[in-house]
Amino acid sequence: MAEEYKDSQLFKIRHSSAHIMAQAMRERFPEAHIAIGPPIEDGFYYDFELPQPAGEEDLKWVENRMKEIIRGGYPFQYREVSADEARAEFTGEKYKLELIDELASGKFDENGNPVSGPATKISFYTQDTFTDLCRGPHVASTAEINPDAISITFKAPAGAYWRGDEKREQLTRIYGTAWETPEQLQEYLHRLEEAKRRDHRVVGEKLGLFTFSPLVGKGLPLWKPKGAVLRDTLERWLRQVQIDNGYLPVVTPHIGNLNLYRTSGHYPYYKDSQYAPIQVDEEEYLLKPMNCPHHIMIYKSEMRSYRDLPQRYAEFGTVYRYEQSGELHGLTRVRGFTVDDAHLFVTPEQLLAEFKAVVKLIQYVFSTLGLQDFRARVGIRDPQSDKYVGDDALWEQATEAILQACDELGLPYAVEEGEAAFYGPKLDFIFRDVLKRNWQLGTVQVDYNLPARFELEYVAEDNTRQRPIMIHRAPFGSLERFIGILIEHFDGAFPAWLAPVQAVVIPVTDKNLGYAEKIAGQLKAAGLRVEVDAGKARMGQKIAVQREQHVPWLLIVGGRDEEAGTVSVRLRTDEDLGAMPVAAFIEQAAQLVNEKSAALQ
Amino acid sequence: MAEEYKDSQLFKIRHSSAHIMAQAMRERFPEAHIAIGPPIEDGFYYDFELPQPAGEEDLKWVENRMKEIIRGGYPFQYREVSADEARAEFTGEKYKLELIDELASGKFDENGNPVSGPATKISFYTQDTFTDLCRGPHVASTAEINPDAISITFKAPAGAYWRGDEKREQLTRIYGTAWETPEQLQEYLHRLEEAKRRDHRVVGEKLGLFTFSPLVGKGLPLWKPKGAVLRDTLERWLRQVQIDNGYLPVVTPHIGNLNLYRTSGHYPYYKDSQYAPIQVDEEEYLLKPMNCPHHIMIYKSEMRSYRDLPQRYAEFGTVYRYEQSGELHGLTRVRGFTVDDAHLFVTPEQLLAEFKAVVKLIQYVFSTLGLQDFRARVGIRDPQSDKYVGDDALWEQATEAILQACDELGLPYAVEEGEAAFYGPKLDFIFRDVLKRNWQLGTVQVDYNLPARFELEYVAEDNTRQRPIMIHRAPFGSLERFIGILIEHFDGAFPAWLAPVQAVVIPVTDKNLGYAEKIAGQLKAAGLRVEVDAGKARMGQKIAVQREQHVPWLLIVGGRDEEAGTVSVRLRTDEDLGAMPVAAFIEQAAQLVNEKSAALQ
Repeated sequence: MAEEYKDSQLFKIRHSSAHIMAQAMRERFPEAHIAIGPPIEDGFYYDFELPQPAGEEDLKWVENRMKEIIRGGYPFQYREVSADEARAEFTGEKYKLELIDELASGKFDENGNPVSGPATKISFYTQDTFTDLCRGPHVASTAEINPDAISITFKAPAGAYWRGDEKREQLTRIYGTAWETPEQLQEYLHRLEEAKRRDHRVVGEKLGLFTFSPLVGKGLPLWKPKGAVLRDTLERWLRQVQIDNGYLPVVTPHIGNLNLYRTSGHYPYYKDSQYAPIQVDEEEYLLKPMNCPHHIMIYKSEMRSYRDLPQRYAEFGTVYRYEQSGELHGLTRVRGFTVDDAHLFVTPEQLLAEFKAVVKLIQYVFSTLGLQDFRARVGIRDPQSDKYVGDDALWEQATEAILQACDELGLPYAVEEGEAAFYGPKLDFIFRDVLKRNWQLGTVQVDYNLPARFELEYVAEDNTRQRPIMIHRAPFGSLERFIGILIEHFDGAFPAWLAPVQAVVIPVTDKNLGYAEKIAGQLKAAGLRVEVDAGKARMGQKIAVQREQHVPWLLIVGGRDEEAGTVSVRLRTDEDLGAMPVAAFIEQAAQLVNEKSAALQ
Repeated sequence: MAEEYKDSQLFKIRHSSAHIMAQAMRERFPEAHIAIGPPIEDGFYYDFELPQPAGEEDLKWVENRMKEIIRGGYPFQYREVSADEARAEFTGEKYKLELIDELASGKFDENGNPVSGPATKISFYTQDTFTDLCRGPHVASTAEINPDAISITFKAPAGAYWRGDEKREQLTRIYGTAWETPEQLQEYLHRLEEAKRRDHRVVGEKLGLFTFSPLVGKGLPLWKPKGAVLRDTLERWLRQVQIDNGYLPVVTPHIGNLNLYRTSGHYPYYKDSQYAPIQVDEEEYLLKPMNCPHHIMIYKSEMRSYRDLPQRYAEFGTVYRYEQSGELHGLTRVRGFTVDDAHLFVTPEQLLAEFKAVVKLIQYVFSTLGLQDFRARVGIRDPQSDKYVGDDALWEQATEAILQACDELGLPYAVEEGEAAFYGPKLDFIFRDVLKRNWQLGTVQVDYNLPARFELEYVAEDNTRQRPIMIHRAPFGSLERFIGILIEHFDGAFPAWLAPVQAVVIPVTDKNLGYAEKIAGQLKAAGLRVEVDAGKARMGQKIAVQREQHVPWLLIVGGRDEEAGTVSVRLRTDEDLGAMPVAAFIEQAAQLVNEKSAALQ
């Protein structure tokens, strides 16, 4: 998708809107210094150094002024100048001057990305009275922009550092969004509202799924009973799917000797995202930042023969990584999380088939969960870069295996150069939720590096010692993050098989309580998660409360039900299925749960 | 048991044998200094300062000499003397002189236990030519000891510090064992041999259950696939039993802010058994030494009403505690272990019923596992001590609840004063394995302290704020230790429902491999854990190997089976059940597994 976006009309509209915003801002704040302003997903931004904060009034003025400029139908005019001419044009604009210097010396482009050599020409784009240092592309004229399809007041400005470097100047980043039609803008604003309403931190609190405690620590979720049930259900299911597919469970500790990570190279390479080592006697230990080295030691605990391979070790392994406290966000950015991890040790001959089986299993997992809208990103080497380790032939073999697996399985994918891990190519799964937001979920990586670092071996059929290849894979990635995404995707109304409480029995009067308890016992015996709402509230209130909790099935039982041996079934959608025999309801509900159906009837 | 043993003839025999050993040792090593020599479980020891190491020859000589002395029929004669007379008698025996000083000054008795006041008289026991400082009791005469029922050569001497203090003199501890009859001695020696053979470290290695890696760290087991299956099976079962009994699962992180443990009092109180804190930004974090504070924060995350109580939070929570590397031992003494933990938050009115339900659940768990021979130790306050916190009335209420629960459930128990936790009385389960060794397993504790420290509350029916009581409980205690004990108890031959591999299909020739795979598929579909032994070895060898692995069912399939649709069933006990239809075998095996039966047919 990334390639398409870069070449799209929408990309140009947003890029041009950023320039128009900069023009309007300079008219509002003549002393402002302009920094950079690229298009981003769903919009654009521009960074400014402002003489005073931009208030709501300012933003409104700027937005209206942008619409005026757009209506002016000004062409975007391209010019090429020398570095010195560029400097003359931007006298007093310190950020632009720094950018020009870097372009001229061949360090970075205007967005801070490294470039291959010094620029001989500097390009400008001008609309109306405003000129920016820019490579484009832009719309031909502001007339191509619909003034009613842009907004910069939809979202508050935020702080940002020049060059993203916290030691440099702090700037004000003003966000804009721009679309081709006003309808698209409205739909986007609606999705934003909806995303806010569905915020998993809010819904998770409402449903009693998890909590945080400053006394336990930042970014360390405590799973309350209902969240733990949801988590266990997901985990137990995936565990069984993996066992059915020949994975072997393992369990490893949450700490490891620092030398383990020195051998793997995770220390000091990923030092910044690790917790400080713990001194134990004469040794140092690290909170486990990843599970792979532990699994490798299990592989290494026995001499392996080609007959033993593939070995597929699976563990729901909790790892701990340091994140700055400002970066933490609910379940989606935490300091401790559980990876649905597995490491496959395979022979080169097995690589393609195993990779394919891994991808197939992940496809099965996502589609069972009803997450249909996903695609893959194949990260391969940047042919220009020398940051990669390992033999060219191996890289080609692995890349070939990944592409072939995707092709054979009909998985839509985009290849991205430079997105490989330094030790091998990888495949990331990108899921688009109901609000059209993209989330990176699971990943599959081919690794030649760790088997070499740990000197892993197997005895081949010809009795020689050979090195296995490792496949790292995690469909969910982080269980915490995945559940955060599920909460927002389903708005807390999980498919029945995942719902922490699947049915609530509501007695019409206190007289029906005994019957309600009896029914609940029958549901429980059938493996359903059920509660009885024996509270004092009126029935209507109880129904409202349980619907808010997104309980799939509400079973209202009154005198007539008790006589007839029925339950009156109300769905969380408010649909009323009327009275049905208890056994019939149980059979239907149990079947929907067993089939992991998204349906409630 | 402790009370009975102390008063038993066996106790006297062992105590007297220690004196006899000291006499013989002094004859062999006239320059030796004698320290102390108490009876212990299954025997006795005596600590000596020796001029040179005691070799095998010396021990044999001493053992023979002991038998001679015993045959001499010497009476054990009791005498009381003053401290000064005692000192005169033990001139040159520095350890005895130190003991006499401490007795006289009222500090410690001759075994190093604190005493209530200075001794006015010192008591001696003399047999033959040897006199020891001793309170007895002893046999009346060496004639009461059977010379063929003692041994000091059964076990190598070990180092020991005087007073158990590593800054004091190092001594040689010589162990003896003594029984009433030679048959009992032989049976004991056999049990020792058997225990050595069944060592879970050896059996665990043989069965591929777990491994240790110096690169991962000392005392940190890595669960290999078969061990992980065993572990998961136990865990999944107990998890379900707990859910059926109204427990709610929770999941909490493996670290916590140091302030959490300061509030709970675990830090700095248990500092020596904790890992060093980890600095994170401005805060310090501790590897979780126990789960209770985390569960408390979940309780505290909402306002609770009396209607919400009891809240029973259960978690298989992995905790980390520092142990000296010399203390580590396989799975039974580790640095990281998983507690089958639960914390119940109850009202005072609920305490008895909840305590009883907890004990009942533990009884159910042990008996389902076939661990019938267990009893309980009720630890109550030492009325003399002031180390306990909390109100007397609460202590009485809790103690009463524990005793009443044991009585009503018919659980054999012994009350031990001074064995309570400082915050409340407790009940420990002691399991006696097939080798008659005692293991402390699970524990149940009543706690008034943490609810007060964390200011826990619930709204009572009269709308006042009340403080809940906590019950801590863990049937297995540590999952690692428990599995270590199970391995030794069952000698690796687990009941079929726990066996990592429940059946192995062995084709008679390569031609039967397809049929073997088909049968295996059918067993798998029925939920059984099955492998096919497709190796090159001969059938007899394969059977031998799988019996060594204690696989419950070996299914041998040849041409005749293939024609008839049967399997020839061999048990791990080597019993041959002959050919039976596949469906009949599956039905029988699945039933035995579902019933958690100890039987294989």
